[in-house]
Amino acid sequence: MSGHTTNLRLKLPAICFLLQLLTILLFAVFVRYDRETSARLWHEELNHHNKSNRDNDFYFRYPSFQDVHTMIFIGFGFLMTFLKRYGFGSVAFNFLIAAFAIQWSTLIQGFFHSFHDGKIHIGIESMINADFCSGAVLISFGAVLGKTSPVQLLLMALFEVTLFGINEYVLLSIIGAKDAGGSMTIHTFGAYFGLMVSRVLYRPQLEKSRQREGSVYHSDLFAMIGTIYLWLFWPSFNSAITAHGDDQQRTAMNTYFSLAASTLATFATSALVNGEGKLDMVHIQNAALAGGVVVGTSGEMMLTPFGAMIAGFLAGLVSTLGFKFLTPILDSRLKLQDTCGVHNLHGMPGVLGALLGALVAALATQDIYGDGMADVFPFIADGSRTATYQGTCQFFALLITLGVAVVGGSLVGVILKIRTLGSPPDTQCFEDQIYWEVPEDHQDGYMMAVNSEDPDRSASSV
Amino acid sequence: MSGHTTNLRLKLPAICFLLQLLTILLFAVFVRYDRETSARLWHEELNHHNKSNRDNDFYFRYPSFQDVHTMIFIGFGFLMTFLKRYGFGSVAFNFLIAAFAIQWSTLIQGFFHSFHDGKIHIGIESMINADFCSGAVLISFGAVLGKTSPVQLLLMALFEVTLFGINEYVLLSIIGAKDAGGSMTIHTFGAYFGLMVSRVLYRPQLEKSRQREGSVYHSDLFAMIGTIYLWLFWPSFNSAITAHGDDQQRTAMNTYFSLAASTLATFATSALVNGEGKLDMVHIQNAALAGGVVVGTSGEMMLTPFGAMIAGFLAGLVSTLGFKFLTPILDSRLKLQDTCGVHNLHGMPGVLGALLGALVAALATQDIYGDGMADVFPFIADGSRTATYQGTCQFFALLITLGVAVVGGSLVGVILKIRTLGSPPDTQCFEDQIYWEVPEDHQDGYMMAVNSEDPDRSASSV
Amino acid sequence: MSGHTTNLRLKLPAICFLLQLLTILLFAVFVRYDRETSARLWHEELNHHNKSNRDNDFYFRYPSFQDVHTMIFIGFGFLMTFLKRYGFGSVAFNFLIAAFAIQWSTLIQGFFHSFHDGKIHIGIESMINADFCSGAVLISFGAVLGKTSPVQLLLMALFEVTLFGINEYVLLSIIGAKDAGGSMTIHTFGAYFGLMVSRVLYRPQLEKSRQREGSVYHSDLFAMIGTIYLWLFWPSFNSAITAHGDDQQRTAMNTYFSLAASTLATFATSALVNGEGKLDMVHIQNAALAGGVVVGTSGEMMLTPFGAMIAGFLAGLVSTLGFKFLTPILDSRLKLQDTCGVHNLHGMPGVLGALLGALVAALATQDIYGDGMADVFPFIADGSRTATYQGTCQFFALLITLGVAVVGGSLVGVILKIRTLGSPPDTQCFEDQIYWEVPEDHQDGYMMAVNSEDPDRSASSV
Repeated sequence: MSGHTTNLRLKLPAICFLLQLLTILLFAVFVRYDRETSARLWHEELNHHNKSNRDNDFYFRYPSFQDVHTMIFIGFGFLMTFLKRYGFGSVAFNFLIAAFAIQWSTLIQGFFHSFHDGKIHIGIESMINADFCSGAVLISFGAVLGKTSPVQLLLMALFEVTLFGINEYVLLSIIGAKDAGGSMTIHTFGAYFGLMVSRVLYRPQLEKSRQREGSVYHSDLFAMIGTIYLWLFWPSFNSAITAHGDDQQRTAMNTYFSLAASTLATFATSALVNGEGKLDMVHIQNAALAGGVVVGTSGEMMLTPFGAMIAGFLAGLVSTLGFKFLTPILDSRLKLQDTCGVHNLHGMPGVLGALLGALVAALATQDIYGDGMADVFPFIADGSRTATYQGTCQFFALLITLGVAVVGGSLVGVILKIRTLGSPPDTQCFEDQIYWEVPEDHQDGYMMAVNSEDPDRSASSV
Repeated sequence: MSGHTTNLRLKLPAICFLLQLLTILLFAVFVRYDRETSARLWHEELNHHNKSNRDNDFYFRYPSFQDVHTMIFIGFGFLMTFLKRYGFGSVAFNFLIAAFAIQWSTLIQGFFHSFHDGKIHIGIESMINADFCSGAVLISFGAVLGKTSPVQLLLMALFEVTLFGINEYVLLSIIGAKDAGGSMTIHTFGAYFGLMVSRVLYRPQLEKSRQREGSVYHSDLFAMIGTIYLWLFWPSFNSAITAHGDDQQRTAMNTYFSLAASTLATFATSALVNGEGKLDMVHIQNAALAGGVVVGTSGEMMLTPFGAMIAGFLAGLVSTLGFKFLTPILDSRLKLQDTCGVHNLHGMPGVLGALLGALVAALATQDIYGDGMADVFPFIADGSRTATYQGTCQFFALLITLGVAVVGGSLVGVILKIRTLGSPPDTQCFEDQIYWEVPEDHQDGYMMAVNSEDPDRSASSV
Repeated sequence: MSGHTTNLRLKLPAICFLLQLLTILLFAVFVRYDRETSARLWHEELNHHNKSNRDNDFYFRYPSFQDVHTMIFIGFGFLMTFLKRYGFGSVAFNFLIAAFAIQWSTLIQGFFHSFHDGKIHIGIESMINADFCSGAVLISFGAVLGKTSPVQLLLMALFEVTLFGINEYVLLSIIGAKDAGGSMTIHTFGAYFGLMVSRVLYRPQLEKSRQREGSVYHSDLFAMIGTIYLWLFWPSFNSAITAHGDDQQRTAMNTYFSLAASTLATFATSALVNGEGKLDMVHIQNAALAGGVVVGTSGEMMLTPFGAMIAGFLAGLVSTLGFKFLTPILDSRLKLQDTCGVHNLHGMPGVLGALLGALVAALATQDIYGDGMADVFPFIADGSRTATYQGTCQFFALLITLGVAVVGGSLVGVILKIRTLGSPPDTQCFEDQIYWEVPEDHQDGYMMAVNSEDPDRSASSV
């Protein structure tokens, strides 16, 4: 019976074909190359606007795009391979839902940000933004990892991308908040959205799959590939869509130092909170990255290098403490089953990052920013806002993000509860074998689990 | 006896030293820095031609080069590590033959494309082209993986690079076909060349090594490193040598969307064709990449984003179906033993990509391309060709490529049959232990195979 | 008892917090954004110096920086995961000490190179240089890998970065030597420094941990990730801080060809020196990289492509022979226990690279370099030095580097002998379990080692 419900033979092809064909149709109707991507339009720019090929945004943004792209598909994908029996699902479902999310978000973000004369115009910047949006979906994926079918995940991506687009539009275009690296739009949104989905999909019997929730030695090394790539390229992530020139350089540098400091804080705290003074791979794999999240909003501002370090240091500390002390409480008290601990890596550091952004914005002065103010805070530069007001707007942007994420995640969780979406039974979570043809060396654990299921009917839950 | 024939002690050093010293000699005589790489010549450009360092092609192409370089050495190398007992050979022979191929192709391509005043002049673009050529060799390597010695592989590289250079010269310089991402020159050529080599080297007793042809759980994860890197950087691959400006950006974008669509098509088809609705790692590792291959010719053209998606979707579909239904037939009926299934990933999508390129070329109009026509179709722009004629040329370029690949691969296969080249016996294919010092944990399988060889003399073959 | 001394509970947090807080304090007092990173200052450049955003050094250097960053954290990190039971320590201690070293070296190098008006001004170039300096520390780490605690490693980084900064200042600013890719400052310095530390920390009873010093099959594949990334991005490493334009392109190209040649030399030599003609992963993982080290000084010069190939070829040859014949002698005769064989990969090729640099500098002529002379050899260009004199200076720079490394490494080794720094006992070297929470599948080997320790109570320690 359980074999039947998780059988993807018709469900997965149906949703993949449907979503892909719908996307192609909408692209055919609405999406066009922008002025820098179209052969005709770019050559008009060259001929009539005194530009050279060097001015094409490709050369300012493509290296950053490729770093972000690596983070989305290698970074997130391998970070989640830490599970001993869910490596295929981690890296490959990550691949599937991100491949869909970048297409769908091109449409959604396009409608909100580059819809002119009935057409969406796209280029390198929209590609980066699409990857960013898929990052939020992958953060949510981390919360429900191993407990959802690829059909559920594609549906989650469909709805989450849409809500992401709305929230981002409200924050950036209506409220006029700044959030280049997405402490709010990506990390806070993705984390709390995913946590709410996980809350609605709460599994009281998940204890039956706990023996598969850990790692093996080499799966932890695969996960480190993800960790290090995320860490390495986070400076590119935060700087990918900031203004050209000093802004990109400053954002990359702030992120670089914030991450370095969060790494030392993570190692220190990990050894400190462990009874035997041993380090815990879970902390290193995750909390060391909190330094990237926490400067997602303020990284483009004149944060100063030491300011970035303080932020990263605190983020690494808080994140590690979260893994040690908060995650078990969230699980037992609030019924929040957070497989990857996204609350520690993206949730709390995202909120901290939003607050830090509000603070640094409120401290902006003409003396510090000079003529660069217009790039970072256009409303302060043109006199329509004070720094304090900008800071206040940043703060409300956080509240709105939390609201959209919590309400949206709850609603989407309810949709994902539909029984025919192929969700794994409680006894077979964190197990590749239900969705994958697996090699011989991987087949025993599943059989063991299935067999142990019957005699263990009375197993207690969390 | 078999131990003797696969012993590399003299053969491998001899061919490595010989090829390397020959290459160094030819470089000493013929190869010089080009105008952008030479200290004297570039500073002449700066002083006398009103250029700035920003105009150096390094800044337009080096990031793309590094992405291509990563695809060649990490992407191809790890993609082939899926075999349970051939990980060393996969990644390291890939390393060896690519390291030789990039040197040799610099010479061969240099003679055809940048030979002036008795010297070959090289720079960043020749480095990209050399990597491209080595890509074709690595595709062929995929067809014969596990069944050939490194000595055979180096000889194959020597001849294949040479034939690649001739074919490319005929296509690009004589016929005037366009093929920036190499649907024809790289993928179609490499696949059918390798398949013919494999056909000539047909092993009727390969069944004796089938128990080693599969994967283990972690070898599939290593292979996913290769897959994802190839997928990620394919936009850079296809755009690396297109014209500056809109062309590079458009090519990258088309490839990005084609790959996303082929990923969804692959997941859908993989679940559909599996009896139990389970996904197959072989499909995900390979067919999801077909979207990059299929826009190799047309990616720089005004394909439109939705056109790229349709192409990618069909390529993923056809490629997955090929793995499921065509590969077994090719093996049993046509005696084509294709270890990595390069016919599905590079062969069919390459041919489709060539046909798509012919179609899109034939549809080119001044209205669509504007002044950008000269970059994409110089002969249409200068009035010497109609779009239809350009499309026809593209089609004949495909036929020529197929012809050169099939004839060339057959001839090279005959050369590689020489008995003293260290080829593994049928019982020891897909086995690292014959060429490598392996750690203890890897030693049993080989011994088992060798032992089982004796009592199993009458084993039937495919 | 031994469990107590390796307990990190207080030691590691104490040193991490102390070093990080000290660094933050020094950054707060001394470190400021440079003219290209500060919003106010860069916009002054834009407004008053006729610059455009394209001129920001970010666009010339950031792609190279990211490649270097990948080498430091992925390349070095995974290269060292070859040990069967020290994968966590390899990649994660690499992560920790590099994260500290980049911060500390920003200060040290800043004091020597960009200290104006009481402030250190930093930007993208200082980030690259900080990564370079951490590379030297990681080379030293390779010599002591598995035999030191993270507390010892952080202390080593603290002192080594400081001495690196002094040595670099003497070489580049006082002697006026050229060393863009660090054959001397990074490789020679890092290798001999680490070897001397290892010499002082000599463990006569290390034999007791030898059963853990080898690899397992998949740990060798993890190591190949490191190898290939180092190999791939070495062209970026050597060219990252050379002058804009031809210099960056030429350096990348020379390194590309040198590495290709060293790869063929390594495969050839590895098969040749093995009794059975088999290849050895240790050689491939390391010696193939010697081509990058050997052109670290001369890569930016007019070395010619074939000159680079000859250099790489010899470096691969010497390095492989070193692994086979020299390492055992250094261990048994000179008591140099060099876990990763850094003497073969960085030591000898570094010295060769320094000598090659001296030779190529001495051969510089106006005819070859033209107006590009000022970028490569400013003192020859302005007439204050002859080429021969520049070559002599290069040679003395090597001698000084060797002196500082040997004396400095010895002194730091003495400091690291302090008994309370958590160093592992001789029976538990190359073992993750003493510093890490490890998964179940990894726990046996350690227990076995601990148990075997008991009957051996009389074993003497360091």
